Amino acid sequence: MVVTNQIDPQASPFDLSTYMAERRGQVEAALDKALTVVYPEKIYESMRYSLLAGGKRLRPILCLATCELAGGSLEMAMPTACALEMVHTMSLIHDDLPAMDNDDYRRGQLTNHKVYGEDVAVLAGDALLSYAFEHIATQTKGAPAENILEVLAGLGRAVGAEGLVGGQIVDLDSEGKQDVTLETLNFIHTHKTAALLEVSVTSGALLANAPRPDIDKLRRYAQRIGLAFQIVDDILDITSTSEALGKSVGKDLKAEKATYPSFWGIEESKRQAQQLINQAKTELHSFGPLNRPLLAIADFITARTH
Amino acid sequence: MVVTNQIDPQASPFDLSTYMAERRGQVEAALDKALTVVYPEKIYESMRYSLLAGGKRLRPILCLATCELAGGSLEMAMPTACALEMVHTMSLIHDDLPAMDNDDYRRGQLTNHKVYGEDVAVLAGDALLSYAFEHIATQTKGAPAENILEVLAGLGRAVGAEGLVGGQIVDLDSEGKQDVTLETLNFIHTHKTAALLEVSVTSGALLANAPRPDIDKLRRYAQRIGLAFQIVDDILDITSTSEALGKSVGKDLKAEKATYPSFWGIEESKRQAQQLINQAKTELHSFGPLNRPLLAIADFITARTH
Repeated sequence: MVVTNQIDPQASPFDLSTYMAERRGQVEAALDKALTVVYPEKIYESMRYSLLAGGKRLRPILCLATCELAGGSLEMAMPTACALEMVHTMSLIHDDLPAMDNDDYRRGQLTNHKVYGEDVAVLAGDALLSYAFEHIATQTKGAPAENILEVLAGLGRAVGAEGLVGGQIVDLDSEGKQDVTLETLNFIHTHKTAALLEVSVTSGALLANAPRPDIDKLRRYAQRIGLAFQIVDDILDITSTSEALGKSVGKDLKAEKATYPSFWGIEESKRQAQQLINQAKTELHSFGPLNRPLLAIADFITARTH
Repeated sequence: MVVTNQIDPQASPFDLSTYMAERRGQVEAALDKALTVVYPEKIYESMRYSLLAGGKRLRPILCLATCELAGGSLEMAMPTACALEMVHTMSLIHDDLPAMDNDDYRRGQLTNHKVYGEDVAVLAGDALLSYAFEHIATQTKGAPAENILEVLAGLGRAVGAEGLVGGQIVDLDSEGKQDVTLETLNFIHTHKTAALLEVSVTSGALLANAPRPDIDKLRRYAQRIGLAFQIVDDILDITSTSEALGKSVGKDLKAEKATYPSFWGIEESKRQAQQLINQAKTELHSFGPLNRPLLAIADFITARTH
């Protein structure tokens, strides 16, 4: 696959929305190509329904941007970028199920199980998850095999009981409870949200064969923007509208969920998010001007509150 | 991890039940060690509940036996052997869900969702699936990294829309239909059952870095025993008792499912299964006496009908 890099991240001034739109287009073309419809059509259609339903494509873009920052190419990171979106989509499909969050809408569209049925939705998630690993293992070119194994290991950890699933379990357990601590809330979100953002960034660096100290800095960058991202999500659930977000709002209050604003109030939540973003950006100082997409993405996360 | 190989597969006469019991013990010890309970305990307990609920451990044993046949060690195949059982367990947990086959019992025990709830059961399956890939990627020692990537790719393909999930989708679609063809029935079972047995065998050979023609022979062996295994399963659903199988029987008839006996009758089904087993064994003739476990496992599959 040839991916043309039409955006020069060193060009001044750096325009994030142009950069994001360009990368999103490249990711969506790669996702579309990665998953064609063959017999039995229903499962592929169901996988594609959710995978190609839009969204910011933040995880793939983080992976691509970090790979370039670390001296790698878009081509070597694209299969992993697509896999990250497949895993993210799987988690959305399964979280939306009646037995979990029971959501009818996602990104302004009916959820997968509302269109295809619960059985197909469970299986579409399973298939996207296993295909994510397969896609990385078969399609990644130009990176050392040992590093690809490390990417696969990191992705597995980010999805399973030590990542997404662990966070979701504690989240489900905490619903309606009055005594949820800030520590528990942090556990939920470092696992449900930050873990996958973290592996999005570190996998890009691993594929480019970046030095370990650089990977550690990028990991801390990702952890901080991951937590900030969730704080902002909690704020938006209170302050935004259903139309603007493309999903239900006010759900946290209705479900009596502990959120950052419920601990800190909205203003302090915004301040904490901004502080995390500043810390995240500090981790990028030692890198060259190719750090501009990651700096701008960090700012973009808190910009969503305004 | 040190796995002692106390069974000499060249000893005469070869006793399969001793061999299977020994290997089963080794696999169960490795599974127990691979998955310890930490916070949040509920997800790990739920994963362990189904993973350590017994069963023949046929997939891991096939992987270990093939790796040894191809000149590899038990140690290098054990992480993949465990991963195969994790994937198999995931498929059972999700297939048993109310939205799918709606089974209350499995191997004589309550199904995962009857004990832990549907939400936890969906997540336990997801976590087992992602952990399977992680476990292979982090724990496999002594095999070339490129071959480990090939094992991961094959496992992904065997689970996803081109394997287990694809078979299950067509199976769900065929229920209650009067016009299911033999071709469709074959599609269901080559995908639902044979695909994972196939990757169990080929992954053992890949880890041992076996020559491609040997891998191809072993693949055909696995495809044939896989289909024979399903024919026998269909026969047992009619002729066996719930106590003997540890799961519900007569379900296929009740669900008006197409089965091999519904096409061929029981006697012809037995004959077809036996023919597949004979073909499978022929593929092993060019190997040395280390082929005895795989020969005996092939015979064991049809012995179950008597």
